[in-house]
Amino acid sequence: MSATLYGLGVGPGDPELITVKALRILRSAPILAYPAPQEGDSLVRQIVAPHIDQADPPIEVAIRMPMLADRFPAQEVYDWAAAELAGHLEAGRDVAVLCEGDPFFYGSFMYLFGRMAERHAVEVVPGVSSLTACAAMAGAPLASRNDVLTVIPAPLPEAALVERLAGVEAAAIIKVGRHLEKVRRVLSDLGLSARARYIEHATMESQRILSLDEVADEAAPYFSMILVHRRGEAWS
Amino acid sequence: MSATLYGLGVGPGDPELITVKALRILRSAPILAYPAPQEGDSLVRQIVAPHIDQADPPIEVAIRMPMLADRFPAQEVYDWAAAELAGHLEAGRDVAVLCEGDPFFYGSFMYLFGRMAERHAVEVVPGVSSLTACAAMAGAPLASRNDVLTVIPAPLPEAALVERLAGVEAAAIIKVGRHLEKVRRVLSDLGLSARARYIEHATMESQRILSLDEVADEAAPYFSMILVHRRGEAWS
Repeated sequence: MSATLYGLGVGPGDPELITVKALRILRSAPILAYPAPQEGDSLVRQIVAPHIDQADPPIEVAIRMPMLADRFPAQEVYDWAAAELAGHLEAGRDVAVLCEGDPFFYGSFMYLFGRMAERHAVEVVPGVSSLTACAAMAGAPLASRNDVLTVIPAPLPEAALVERLAGVEAAAIIKVGRHLEKVRRVLSDLGLSARARYIEHATMESQRILSLDEVADEAAPYFSMILVHRRGEAWS
Repeated sequence: MSATLYGLGVGPGDPELITVKALRILRSAPILAYPAPQEGDSLVRQIVAPHIDQADPPIEVAIRMPMLADRFPAQEVYDWAAAELAGHLEAGRDVAVLCEGDPFFYGSFMYLFGRMAERHAVEVVPGVSSLTACAAMAGAPLASRNDVLTVIPAPLPEAALVERLAGVEAAAIIKVGRHLEKVRRVLSDLGLSARARYIEHATMESQRILSLDEVADEAAPYFSMILVHRRGEAWS
């Protein structure tokens, strides 16, 4: 009855960017749950693969999400997952839910948290978010002194992006994906293109860092971000 | 000549929230540098104290900052530190600079980065920031879906705080410190007090999490943050 549900931030992609605490819990929890696509491998499961104790492997629970653009969260899937994981907790088995980056920075773990935190012991282990990972990889400090830093999801309508970015000092535009052309147009109209850096798959082997005009016209991957600082460099 | 300057994010305070990568570099770098007050102990040095190899201790360089409110960065100190650390690099010794949280999230490491990155090999190791650590400890997801998340330094003038917070969906007000009363007034005027959570010293033994009206009138510590979400909970 004292089992705990852990929301484990495992960091942005480099397996070495997991925290010592998350690694300890990952290696001791008997149940490992993680989001996964409807078919195929889970990205976050791949991130922690080098850390899993092969001699004493956990029971794995894949939370498979239908990939339906603009229809999230998938309530039925989270309802099912919450019930499934509650069963393990009630049987006294700790459950570690793997989360890319940080569980509470635009992470889907919060939908399990919202369903389970009142009835079960839940501990959230913060992780290195894509936000600071992208900045580190690009050599682009996010914000300093009294800068306001704004995190803006690219799926917002174009007019909202213009409004949010117009007066911004420092911004991180997340979930660029198929919204690349819209974001590029908005930044260009606002005269911010030269201040922008594009990063995809930060800290992974497939990482790429480009200026905005180097990015091809096709859609960016979902795990891509554009960092903008009005002064060019946050330390100036 | 191939020595590297590392900006090491060591996380928000709990020594276990350092990444495996930062821990590896911390234990192998012959030179350890860190910010410190003009007199007394360095907080970030205390965070990593359990990790330092006592059998083969590094050479330590304390970068001592005069505590002058509203006069930062202290250019002369960073000029001195950059020259001191460059001497070690030129002699072939790797240097690890300890950074609370993440080096590029309002961190002072960026002032060394700005002075040294053109002439030396610099690697930034992202860390768990206070932003996600506070959210995890408070059980308060920062943002979800297409929420815009705004990070707002409390030292801004009251009118600027009102403007920034007026239409906000999700906000983290950082560096609360002696600006507590001003921030509390602004949140109250905007009807956001009941949506706010106050966190100080997140993940440290001295951590406290309070509602806004539980916080005493005296100044908060510098390492304090107020999280606000207009919907109350990000998952709703």
